[in-house]
Amino acid sequence: MIKGDIYVDVAIIGGTGYGAAELIRLLHHHPHANVKKIISQSNSGVKMDEVYPHLDNIVEVEMEDFNAESIAKEVDVVFFATPSNVSKHRIPELIDLGVKVIDLSGDFRLNSRELYKQYYGEDMAADNYVNQAVYGLSEIYRKEISEASLIANPGCYPTSVTLGLMPLIDHKWIKNETLIIDAKTGVSGAGRSLSLNVHYSEMNENLKAYGIGKHKHIPEIEQTLTERLNDDVQVIFTPHIVPMTRGILSTMYIDLKDSKTTDEMIELYKQYYKDAPFVRIRKEGVMPATKEVYGSNYCDIGLYMDERTNKLIVVSVIDNLVKGAAGQAVQNMNIMFGFDDMAGLRQLPTYP
Amino acid sequence: MIKGDIYVDVAIIGGTGYGAAELIRLLHHHPHANVKKIISQSNSGVKMDEVYPHLDNIVEVEMEDFNAESIAKEVDVVFFATPSNVSKHRIPELIDLGVKVIDLSGDFRLNSRELYKQYYGEDMAADNYVNQAVYGLSEIYRKEISEASLIANPGCYPTSVTLGLMPLIDHKWIKNETLIIDAKTGVSGAGRSLSLNVHYSEMNENLKAYGIGKHKHIPEIEQTLTERLNDDVQVIFTPHIVPMTRGILSTMYIDLKDSKTTDEMIELYKQYYKDAPFVRIRKEGVMPATKEVYGSNYCDIGLYMDERTNKLIVVSVIDNLVKGAAGQAVQNMNIMFGFDDMAGLRQLPTYP
Amino acid sequence: MIKGDIYVDVAIIGGTGYGAAELIRLLHHHPHANVKKIISQSNSGVKMDEVYPHLDNIVEVEMEDFNAESIAKEVDVVFFATPSNVSKHRIPELIDLGVKVIDLSGDFRLNSRELYKQYYGEDMAADNYVNQAVYGLSEIYRKEISEASLIANPGCYPTSVTLGLMPLIDHKWIKNETLIIDAKTGVSGAGRSLSLNVHYSEMNENLKAYGIGKHKHIPEIEQTLTERLNDDVQVIFTPHIVPMTRGILSTMYIDLKDSKTTDEMIELYKQYYKDAPFVRIRKEGVMPATKEVYGSNYCDIGLYMDERTNKLIVVSVIDNLVKGAAGQAVQNMNIMFGFDDMAGLRQLPTYP
Amino acid sequence: MIKGDIYVDVAIIGGTGYGAAELIRLLHHHPHANVKKIISQSNSGVKMDEVYPHLDNIVEVEMEDFNAESIAKEVDVVFFATPSNVSKHRIPELIDLGVKVIDLSGDFRLNSRELYKQYYGEDMAADNYVNQAVYGLSEIYRKEISEASLIANPGCYPTSVTLGLMPLIDHKWIKNETLIIDAKTGVSGAGRSLSLNVHYSEMNENLKAYGIGKHKHIPEIEQTLTERLNDDVQVIFTPHIVPMTRGILSTMYIDLKDSKTTDEMIELYKQYYKDAPFVRIRKEGVMPATKEVYGSNYCDIGLYMDERTNKLIVVSVIDNLVKGAAGQAVQNMNIMFGFDDMAGLRQLPTYP
Repeated sequence: MIKGDIYVDVAIIGGTGYGAAELIRLLHHHPHANVKKIISQSNSGVKMDEVYPHLDNIVEVEMEDFNAESIAKEVDVVFFATPSNVSKHRIPELIDLGVKVIDLSGDFRLNSRELYKQYYGEDMAADNYVNQAVYGLSEIYRKEISEASLIANPGCYPTSVTLGLMPLIDHKWIKNETLIIDAKTGVSGAGRSLSLNVHYSEMNENLKAYGIGKHKHIPEIEQTLTERLNDDVQVIFTPHIVPMTRGILSTMYIDLKDSKTTDEMIELYKQYYKDAPFVRIRKEGVMPATKEVYGSNYCDIGLYMDERTNKLIVVSVIDNLVKGAAGQAVQNMNIMFGFDDMAGLRQLPTYP
Repeated sequence: MIKGDIYVDVAIIGGTGYGAAELIRLLHHHPHANVKKIISQSNSGVKMDEVYPHLDNIVEVEMEDFNAESIAKEVDVVFFATPSNVSKHRIPELIDLGVKVIDLSGDFRLNSRELYKQYYGEDMAADNYVNQAVYGLSEIYRKEISEASLIANPGCYPTSVTLGLMPLIDHKWIKNETLIIDAKTGVSGAGRSLSLNVHYSEMNENLKAYGIGKHKHIPEIEQTLTERLNDDVQVIFTPHIVPMTRGILSTMYIDLKDSKTTDEMIELYKQYYKDAPFVRIRKEGVMPATKEVYGSNYCDIGLYMDERTNKLIVVSVIDNLVKGAAGQAVQNMNIMFGFDDMAGLRQLPTYP
Repeated sequence: MIKGDIYVDVAIIGGTGYGAAELIRLLHHHPHANVKKIISQSNSGVKMDEVYPHLDNIVEVEMEDFNAESIAKEVDVVFFATPSNVSKHRIPELIDLGVKVIDLSGDFRLNSRELYKQYYGEDMAADNYVNQAVYGLSEIYRKEISEASLIANPGCYPTSVTLGLMPLIDHKWIKNETLIIDAKTGVSGAGRSLSLNVHYSEMNENLKAYGIGKHKHIPEIEQTLTERLNDDVQVIFTPHIVPMTRGILSTMYIDLKDSKTTDEMIELYKQYYKDAPFVRIRKEGVMPATKEVYGSNYCDIGLYMDERTNKLIVVSVIDNLVKGAAGQAVQNMNIMFGFDDMAGLRQLPTYP
Repeated sequence: MIKGDIYVDVAIIGGTGYGAAELIRLLHHHPHANVKKIISQSNSGVKMDEVYPHLDNIVEVEMEDFNAESIAKEVDVVFFATPSNVSKHRIPELIDLGVKVIDLSGDFRLNSRELYKQYYGEDMAADNYVNQAVYGLSEIYRKEISEASLIANPGCYPTSVTLGLMPLIDHKWIKNETLIIDAKTGVSGAGRSLSLNVHYSEMNENLKAYGIGKHKHIPEIEQTLTERLNDDVQVIFTPHIVPMTRGILSTMYIDLKDSKTTDEMIELYKQYYKDAPFVRIRKEGVMPATKEVYGSNYCDIGLYMDERTNKLIVVSVIDNLVKGAAGQAVQNMNIMFGFDDMAGLRQLPTYP
């Protein structure tokens, strides 16, 4: 295991997307990591700062074609920040060559071949690879992550949702197995690919629900909660898109078995996350806002017990590109290589 | 009853707020109305276009102090666009003088003196005035509005919520009396009064929940739904504020008694609103966006049946300053005076 | 000439762009116009509200292929809201068939074949059609417009710039023939075609200069000012794009021949535009903001004389889609057909 | 001089403003600095994270009253992030006690008592303190800063403007002494104090010019350029406010003595700033955007020679809260204490 002053060499696959740009931003600070290769099929040969001028004079590395052997020879860990159904074709070879992989896409998150087919439209990777993948919800699966070679980094919505629900799941306080999740995301979650939906003039000063009943993150959330509760969990999951670049806010409505006060719930959550430096529980009467985690790896949670109806309202916020993607990926790398969880992730939220 | 080419003369109380500005915009087009007086305690003697430069050269009328007698003498109908606990002191005198009143504030919306005290912090107006007030949800209480002298114009959230739920309530298809309402508003709902919450640098690129369990619109929504269902309805109501100026989107989660398809629900809603020109039901698979009603009096509704859980998801959007305030007030004036519902309200949404 | 209660029938070419959507919005109110046909090559057979859901239940007309003869038979005037180098192929045939045309694109604005080739990249239309075109700056070329069959509707930037400079040009108060124009536009000026530049996540919370020295509107502005001054005018024109949907603000810096005060300049401008209902001159010490003309056909102008340097600063704002495109086009139709200038254009700015 | 692993202890005065929040963010990373005290007159006794919830669990220090002696005893350097006309009352005492001070406000920037009175409305501090102040434009006054006890940290606009002009000034290539500066700022420059101008609903989807001829930064810019050129420089300075939180873009128009190409100008600038790690010169045909420096200490510059008129256009962008305030202040601290310029300032721009 690599520790102390030793560096890990990193490759990033999918160099032109926002996931890659964010990985580069976070790893730039990292005391033990060094971005050695950036791979892009569509922009092989192009310098990074031509695609992202904010990297001018800072990251001028030339993007390369994917070549598993040269990657395996030169780097210790590979991040995939690719669209769906790409990494499944590349990762097996890398794993066979003994490289550790953290996959920010959804290709290795699901266990069910049927659900993968239904939601991702293609066949899943071969079982022996899928079975090696550990779901990288850092706060929950620390031990498994530390021993894994392949991390399926969670989706942005599932991260905000499952961190917001885990204390209830693990304490089995949930009464009704149908949970209502009303989630709202900033626009960067849609990536850098052009689409009328996120054309500026269409999306500015606009708010809409989308993908109800069809979103890829539904089976992912249900799988995690079901496994953990060891009982079926169903979610009604309604994503909305909000006119801002970054941030996810998930509002969750849960029927509790027993009558509790807001204060008791806050205590439970604080206790549950007492060793998790990136999860912050707000005090009674205060709800978190997305701007309070902007650009950082924090997940902030607010709680309200509606005592009239014995329903708990959980509000969970993250920066979708950090804790919801690249930040959690770096946190997982830290866990895999035995670094401090916060290495490279100490930056405060940018406010205002 | 005044009809055809006859004009009604109008006074607007609360001239410096956004409600007044929006009334002026809509009445400017109105074929049968004429804004004769604008009243402002804080800006008496000031010309309207000094407070709102967009009215330069168009509405240069000088604002006046409130004087019930001169108002009664000169106008046919008075709009109150004042903060809470103002109109209750002014309206009784005007009613006694025989003027019709449309109150955009919440002072006359509730029936319960206790709830008013709890949510508005002061005592309600005297019963004989409160009892005269008709709740101005135009599509639902047409007949009562047409005969009323005092309209309690609905709140912005309650308009989007109750229009979204009425077909279910009236058909008694709701199973569980606890409804979950996750509502999102643009910032103009907070009015023109300064506050750190809606300071640009705090609110831009930000999203937050607020006022959970305490919002004034909770008793208003519950009162309307309970009366109409003739059975207790409770709502979990979570308002959020979104970085855009106009628009409300309410997402509602309802347990249905019987198993239905999305298509059946759409048919029910279309039938229910077949004579309501401002309510538009989206077809299957399409959800409305706030930008699609921007600046207009439309309420657009989308429906999705989650057949796994037999829950219905209703998404309802309005422009909070139009159908959620000034537009519905003008619509109510039209109903009171026998004009076409759409008089003054024919403008299309401004898109993009 | 058609007047009074008589309607003109209208066709709009380029049905899926923002120019068409805005024409539909404005003409919907128009007391003397009726949109009879909407033409779209790319969406022929599609209903308008499928492309623009805000028109649901209101404008459900099916878009058609372009057919000059059926257009000529059924409509009185045709609006082209097409990209560059499209209308030049269609307009000659329509003109030959005796239909009036208002072209919102740049195809007929320039006199010089060389400049057209340089800035538009193709050849201009044949001279006999170009020569018939009248430049539709409504306030300046009223008489010519009233007699024209073909209007070259001005560009958005040129409208804000030339209205801001005309009083100085016509009074020959300009000393230096090189004018500095620093212009800022909202994003909708880039249209509905997808591009990374106006992808939401790239453009939100961003501000940039673009197209310096290369913008199509440079020769258009110089041509208008040069013809009118009867002497060479050169402009340094720097366009910027601002994170908002609508609005143009042009800041212009002019050396004056003689020493003047701000007050004298305001007087000159007020006098010059005394019969122009859509041009509003702000009083001393007040500068216009784009939001003050949002959704309306106004052009608001503010003036400041820097007496230390004898330079005049002119700030001119319009809504780029209204006075900068569809609104001015409707105003030109009004002038061509003898209607009131303000017909269909009376809506107040939408504020806030 | 303190170096290597030694820490400097820091006090921040003005704890509730955005300047302080940004200092805290940047110093949190700093390898050689430790924020020991946060002073706030208005919020003494309040914990920092109550005023700024994004600091929850991270910066929970209690704000204190100002007390010069305890500050002098405990810290090495004091940052003032206070409104105008506050630091001038506090700094003399601290200087007398031997503490180093970096003043982010304008109190010590001007040399002229008359101009201070005219633009700041009060009297300037006593001469012996004003004379000690060094203008903290890091790239230009390195040596003076390294020896100073009191730094007058430059204003946000002046930083973007003077960095954009210095190569021309120092090479005496400017022909005409009147420079035109069209500057645009994000809203956070207006601070956290409430005002209708920056109320969200007023400022969103809006763009306006303000303070023409009256802005405090006019004498600051003219003083710096005049001293450096050793000849009178006058600027026409037009600030605009843009609907975004962070960023300044200044567009400058300069008449050059001799004919140059864009390429020659780029070469000059690259040479001039070859040792300045935070100044980046864009290549020909590329202009910088504010988002490309978001959250970072970079100043990016683009150049365009208009060869028709021999005017140079310089576009300079910074993050107003970083290079325009707190970032440059930290950079100045680094220079004063002999640390690497980039210490604490290595974070990449946050993009998108």
